[in-house]
Formats: sequence, C-alpha cells, structure tokens
Amino acid sequence: MTDPIPVAVLGAPGRMGSAAVRAIEAADDLELVAGIGPDDDRDDALRAGARVVVDLTVPSVTKDNVLWAVSNGIHAVVGATGWTEESLAEVREALGDAPSTGVLIAPNFAIGAVLAMRFAEVAAHYYESAEIVELHHPDKVDAPSGTARHTAAAIARGRAAAGLGAMPDATASDPDGARGAVVDGVHVHAVRLRGLVAHEEILFGGVGEQMTIRHDSFDRASFMPGVLLGVREVASHPGLTVGLDGYMDLGAH
Amino acid sequence: MTDPIPVAVLGAPGRMGSAAVRAIEAADDLELVAGIGPDDDRDDALRAGARVVVDLTVPSVTKDNVLWAVSNGIHAVVGATGWTEESLAEVREALGDAPSTGVLIAPNFAIGAVLAMRFAEVAAHYYESAEIVELHHPDKVDAPSGTARHTAAAIARGRAAAGLGAMPDATASDPDGARGAVVDGVHVHAVRLRGLVAHEEILFGGVGEQMTIRHDSFDRASFMPGVLLGVREVASHPGLTVGLDGYMDLGAH
Amino acid sequence: MTDPIPVAVLGAPGRMGSAAVRAIEAADDLELVAGIGPDDDRDDALRAGARVVVDLTVPSVTKDNVLWAVSNGIHAVVGATGWTEESLAEVREALGDAPSTGVLIAPNFAIGAVLAMRFAEVAAHYYESAEIVELHHPDKVDAPSGTARHTAAAIARGRAAAGLGAMPDATASDPDGARGAVVDGVHVHAVRLRGLVAHEEILFGGVGEQMTIRHDSFDRASFMPGVLLGVREVASHPGLTVGLDGYMDLGAH
Amino acid sequence: MTDPIPVAVLGAPGRMGSAAVRAIEAADDLELVAGIGPDDDRDDALRAGARVVVDLTVPSVTKDNVLWAVSNGIHAVVGATGWTEESLAEVREALGDAPSTGVLIAPNFAIGAVLAMRFAEVAAHYYESAEIVELHHPDKVDAPSGTARHTAAAIARGRAAAGLGAMPDATASDPDGARGAVVDGVHVHAVRLRGLVAHEEILFGGVGEQMTIRHDSFDRASFMPGVLLGVREVASHPGLTVGLDGYMDLGAH
Repeated sequence: MTDPIPVAVLGAPGRMGSAAVRAIEAADDLELVAGIGPDDDRDDALRAGARVVVDLTVPSVTKDNVLWAVSNGIHAVVGATGWTEESLAEVREALGDAPSTGVLIAPNFAIGAVLAMRFAEVAAHYYESAEIVELHHPDKVDAPSGTARHTAAAIARGRAAAGLGAMPDATASDPDGARGAVVDGVHVHAVRLRGLVAHEEILFGGVGEQMTIRHDSFDRASFMPGVLLGVREVASHPGLTVGLDGYMDLGAH
Repeated sequence: MTDPIPVAVLGAPGRMGSAAVRAIEAADDLELVAGIGPDDDRDDALRAGARVVVDLTVPSVTKDNVLWAVSNGIHAVVGATGWTEESLAEVREALGDAPSTGVLIAPNFAIGAVLAMRFAEVAAHYYESAEIVELHHPDKVDAPSGTARHTAAAIARGRAAAGLGAMPDATASDPDGARGAVVDGVHVHAVRLRGLVAHEEILFGGVGEQMTIRHDSFDRASFMPGVLLGVREVASHPGLTVGLDGYMDLGAH
Repeated sequence: MTDPIPVAVLGAPGRMGSAAVRAIEAADDLELVAGIGPDDDRDDALRAGARVVVDLTVPSVTKDNVLWAVSNGIHAVVGATGWTEESLAEVREALGDAPSTGVLIAPNFAIGAVLAMRFAEVAAHYYESAEIVELHHPDKVDAPSGTARHTAAAIARGRAAAGLGAMPDATASDPDGARGAVVDGVHVHAVRLRGLVAHEEILFGGVGEQMTIRHDSFDRASFMPGVLLGVREVASHPGLTVGLDGYMDLGAH
Repeated sequence: MTDPIPVAVLGAPGRMGSAAVRAIEAADDLELVAGIGPDDDRDDALRAGARVVVDLTVPSVTKDNVLWAVSNGIHAVVGATGWTEESLAEVREALGDAPSTGVLIAPNFAIGAVLAMRFAEVAAHYYESAEIVELHHPDKVDAPSGTARHTAAAIARGRAAAGLGAMPDATASDPDGARGAVVDGVHVHAVRLRGLVAHEEILFGGVGEQMTIRHDSFDRASFMPGVLLGVREVASHPGLTVGLDGYMDLGAH
C-alpha cells in the first residue's frame, strides 16, 4: 500500500470545509495535515507537507489561494463558484510555469448531478421533447437553480449536435405562466417544498415513450465523494480542469 | 341476476361516445339500446326503452338533451363541460317535477383524477407546502390543465379548513418565471412532452418528509369505468349531482 | 390565548425522545415540564404538573408507564410498538375507572404514512391491480417493513369491501422470485439503498391509467407533527385510541 | 437532397412489421419498395430494388433471411431474438465474402431502453447501491423482464470495472421474499399492473444521495425510431453489429 496523500483544507471551519475535513480524515488513503481557517496562516499547509489543498473558501479569496498553491507546487481542488474567464486565464498562465501541477475547479462536486447532466446531453440527441423540473427547499432565493441552467445548456448542446430544431408545443393560452422558464430553448420548472434539499428531474419524451433522469441530494455529505475523487486524481491531471466530469470515466463525446 | 339496464348514448359517433358504446356493450349488466348521432332522432332512445342516457355531445346541445331526458323520466349521465350556474339551475328546476329522476354532470370521468383531487384536499391539511406538476402531450393548447386548476382549488380549501396561511417561499430572483403559475395560492407547473397523454403529480412537503399523489391517464379507456359507475348509480341518486365523487365512497368530509 | 399544555416525556434521552423534547419546547401551545430518563423517577412528572405524558420508552416498560399515567389521571401518548391484545385489554380496563382520561397508542407517528395508508384503502376499491414498493436504508434488518405490511392489509380491506377478487397476473416463470412477497394477496417489494431513510410507493393500475401514492420520510423530524397532534388532541379523546388516524380528519369510512 | 433509401420489410403483416411499414412510409428519406409476408416470395424485394431489408419475422426463419440478404449484397436490420453464438458465427462468415455489407441484429429497438442500460453501466461505477424495478402489464408470463436482466448485467460490469464489491444489505429476516430476485448480484423487482406496458426504473444510492434512471414504453411505436436509425446507418457499418448501441453516439467506454 502506498503512503496516504497529505491534504490541507482551506476554509476548514465552513460547512463544506468541515464536511471535507471529516471525509478526508475518514479516508484511509488520505491524511489531513492542516485545516486552515480565515484567521490562520495558509503557509501552515506548506510547513505541514500538504501535496494537495482543497479550497472551500469564498469567491473573494479563492483565486489568490489557487495562485499561491500553484506557485508552491501544490495541487489544488477548488469548490468556490464565481470564476470569470479572466480569473481562469490567470490560473492557466501560472500553470504554464508549473507543468506538473494540477488544478481542478468544480462548480458542483455532486457526482450524481454531473452524471445526470452528461446523460441528459447524450439522451437529448434522441428525443423530440425535453424539460427540467428542479425541486428545492423553500429557503432558496433564486429560481431556477444553477444546476438546472447548466442542464438546460447541456440539453441544448445535445439537440444542436443531433440537428434537432424547436420542441413541439401548441400552447396558445397560458395566462399565469404555468409553462415556466425557458433556458436555452428548454422549459425549466422550479418547485419549492419544505422538507426537500436539492433535486433535479430531467424528462425526455418521444412517440410512445418517456425517459426520466433524476438526482436527489439529501445531504451535504453527497458532495464528499466528488471532493475525494478530485483529491485522489488531481496529481494525475496536470494543468487546469474545469468541471468534475473531466476526471470521470464518462466516455469521449 | 337482475335484467341489464337499457342505456342509450347521445353523441355516439364521437371519440368519447364510441368508447362509451364499446364499454357498455362489453358490460354484462348493461344493454346498449340506442346509439344516437347528430343526424339521428334522439326520440329513438325513448322508443328503444332506454332508462339511462349517456350524453357525450358538445356544450351547445347538452343542456337541451338533459332537459329532454328529465321531461321523459330518463336518468342522464353527462360528460360535457361548459355548464354555467344558470344552466344547472334550469336542470334543478326541471328535476323538481321529476323527483325520482337522477342527473349526473361530471366534468371528469377519470376515477383516478377524482380520487387524486380528494386525497389532495385531505393531505393539504397536514403539510406546510404543496405544489402541482401537470404533464400532457404537446398538442394541448391551454396551460395549466383544468384538472390542475381544480386540484389547486381543492388544496386551497384543505389549507383554509386547517387554518394554514401562505406557503414558505424565499424566492427573490426568478427572472424567467421558473416558479410557474399561481392558482388559488398554489404553484402549478405545466410540462409538455411528446409521448405523454394526461398526467398530474401533486407534491406535499413538511419538515423531514414528502408526500406525492400521481395520476396517469394513458388512454381514453381510463374514463370508461367512471362512465359505467355513473350509469349504474344514477337511478339511486335522484336529483342533480355535479362531480363523479358524489357517487364514490370517499368518506364524508 | 389559553395556557400551554404541561407535557412530560418518558424516554427523553432516546433518539425519538430527544426529538420530542425539542419539538415540544419549540411549540408555543405546549410546555415541557419534565424529561424523564431510565434512571429518573417518573413521579417527577406528576410533581411537575404534567397533564399529558409522551411515552417513547421501550416495549418492556411502556405498558406499566401507561397504567401508571391512567391511575394518576394523566393522558398518555404512546409510541412504543409490540402491544398485544392482552396489554390493550388491560389499558381499556384501567380506563374504565378513569372515563375522562385519554390514551393514544400510535405504532406510526408519521402523518404522511398514515394518510398514505388511508388513501390506499380508498383507492383499492377502484383499481384492478395494486402493489407496494417500500424503500429503506440498507441497515434495516427486516423485509418488508411493518408499514408496507399494514398498507397491504389496508388494500386487502378496500378490495374486499368493493367485492374485488384476485388481481390479474399471468406470471408463469419467475425462477428467482422477482415478483416479491405476497402479503394479504398484495405483492410487496423491498428495496435497500444507501442514502435512503424510509419510503413507500403504492401503485394502482386499471385499464389505461395508473395511480401512485408515495411517502418519503427523510428524517426522524417527520414524526414530530404526529406526536404534537397526539399531545394536543388526546384530552379530547377519552378512552383508548389505537392509531393516529383516529385523531385525523380523514372522513368516516 | 439525396434519393430516399429503398427498403423492404420481411414480416410485414405482423404487429412490429406493420408498424415498421407505416414508419418507413412516413419518413421522407426512406422509400418502402416491398412488404413481404409469409406467403410472398422474398425475391420480390430484390426485384423492387431494396438496398436495406428490415427483418421482423420469427426466430425460425430469421437466420435464413439474413444469409439470403448478405448473399444478395443487401444490408439487413434484424429484430428477431433467439440468436445463438453459432448463428452469429454463420452470419460473420457470410459477411467475410461481402465486406461492404452491413448487418444489425438488435434484440431491443427501444432507444430509450438502450440509453438507460448504458447510463446504468456508467453510473454503477459511482454508487454503493443499485437495484432495478421493472413494471409491466399483468399478461406478461416471465419475470423479471429480459431488459431488466440485461440491465443487471450492465450494472455488474460497471461495478466490477470500478472495483466495487457486494452491496450493503443487513436484511436478516425476509420470510416472504420481499427482496426479490438477485441477478448478477443486483436485486431485481418485477411489478405487474393493469394499464402498464413496459417500464424500467434503475435506482442508485450513495451517502446522502440517490440517482434514478427510468424508461417508459407506452406503445410499440416507441421501437420505430430505433428501426429507422438502423435502416439509415446500416450501410455505414459494414460487418455484423449486435445491439443498437453500436450505432449510437454514446461515447467510447
């Protein structure tokens, strides 16, 4: 058996961060060597010998953390959202001087959501109709969810690749907006129910048949397999990878 | 065994009418004595000895058919929609002179849809959140469906009876209308997919739990048990009954 | 506003007990006056003025607790399972001397599961086919679940009341037992999946249609509305009531 | 626009055959040049100029039809089941002398079922638990369905490739067989309900999440897109292809 990979977590006291700390501690092939909070010195991670840092901080500091990791030759697995093309370009440039270092920036660590999006893109080639229903707890402030928007974009790519045009829809009267949002040509519906967490149902229809792909996240714990996959694989993927699917065996496309 | 009930169908050549003709012919306890089309004389039904007429004609003639049936002492089971309070009052007045005659006017003969609506009203007492997703073929011109509107009204009645206020919903940003229509305070979402027929999913949520009631109509045949129930029961329910649930054993409420 | 009801919890340190303690403390119309553990003196509840006790102890002591409550004129809401007809008879006899005292023994406090069972019994009158799929976490040791067995019994009662015979099933070859268990004439299937908690799906089929009733328990918190309903209503229901549905407005049947 | 592809159907009077005839007639890029029944001379297809034959006959004659097509330089799209390794070897040998001729033998023309199976194999890499529920009309004589058996095999392949062992299952008491069949280590449950046609639900579970892939066939028409895909693509795939997925863009694996 090989030695465990030494890992540091930036943003360790946060909700995602503390879940990541627990998941890393529980994994036999990983060793948590530093948990860094906003008041700590991130160079403690270097002194502790971290080979991979998991950055679960906030958008305002995440880019600086990634550049710091790259300049120190440490691989980085990053969960924060809000990256712009300019920020990504800066990371790519920094990586030019560190050709063996890997950076994974993953807006979504839920493997199931990533799988659902990829399956949706493939299935979209073969169905006349496709719609999305996303369901969340009622404390969510935006609708539809970012995952639903990304899924709509994936369906649109699949349909375009297959040469499909607009979906059939004879709706002539919809005074109250029951048909929902249209994102990249795909109708998206947002349900809010007490008791739910984060759920997505992708519906495809053709003559005489229906296909449904559904993903349910019941708990933040569902993100941890994705974080661990990133930590284990980042050293084998030098350069910048955006999206967890870059590390998953989903077939070329 | 008792003699079969002699039944006539008005609107026999139509899609619902011809399905009703087949269903009555297939039932051992019923006998089809006349199938009347728009060019036929409805008095043929009297001459053939009909004791019940099933009216599956169009809104413009259905009221006249019902008054004709009542004046001839025949029970009527009616599927046409578009009845106004004034039309119903005329029928009630006519029935005043025919106290043993029964009339059933049922906007929906799908027993499953009627059950779903009643269950929704009961469940609505006990859940903080409730929403409706209706799914139909893409040739449907209106959204949401009439069944979904009636279900929203039933949920609103249940919530009011339980003293529940507005549902929780923190949505602050919904630029594309993903939250759908609001009918009687209930969010209603309309999905249109090739391959589907008529489907309704009613979702309830409370802390730590969800309840779902779903009805799928795959085929017009699903309306026939409701038509036959009406034919068998109408003689035992003198006066006017609106809604098939008046003949179903759903418990007092 | 009336004074809050003083409530004591027996079995307060357990998982259900501590959830009940929190739920009672959070309710404006209830006041927790005592939380009794296995090493405490239950008479503390009397001294603290409890008018209702919630018994969430283990089968071996629950009957003694109920008889103690009745003899002291305190209403009891009881969650423990394992009651025999003999034990229930003892409680009924004790209540004979305390005509204004109420006891609720509820094998299942999940309002949604109780609703699902009642809806299933009603729907069973109207469908040719009915089956149950229950889904739980993989640490559950018995299959199928008690709730699924009770639901099968409810479906059997509904079918019997409607005069329905055996369900259609042409299965001639099933070498590996894919058709699952048969409980009271109803096929019951048990799924075990990591990530799930406790879920039940009840499926009804007729010509051209399907009806589905599903209940998902994601969290023990889903039992608390049922416990609180019991506490609030027990004083208005003198005598012994078995099953939470006795307190719910489900219509006579 | 290119000329339409001339197509002949063998087994044209059968249920699948007549559906294929209608689908080909309705497609602008295909031309039906012959519909051959059991009493017709299949050489009529040659005389009519067919470049592709669709064989929807019975197992006893399908192999002979394929060999006849290959020997005449016509591509063949074949739906019959019951092919043995020996029969496939004969076809491969015949194709050795006809290197530009294509033969597709597809046990399942439902694109959705093929997609579901492939998605299941991919998803199986990432989940601790997986089970299958298949649902059919109650006139089906075997359980579980062939599609469910193939899906279980696909899940087993995916789990093996990911190095996953047995699924978690603490079931100690299951007196009535509620846990269903075990096929290649995967639990499979068969539901039979009046009103259904052919449906499959594949369930995956991990800590804090669930993924569901469902395919519904409501009508034989759902097989026709797969037949047409085969007809359009067979000329571009010389040699023998078994399984419609060989013609679909599902990514290398």
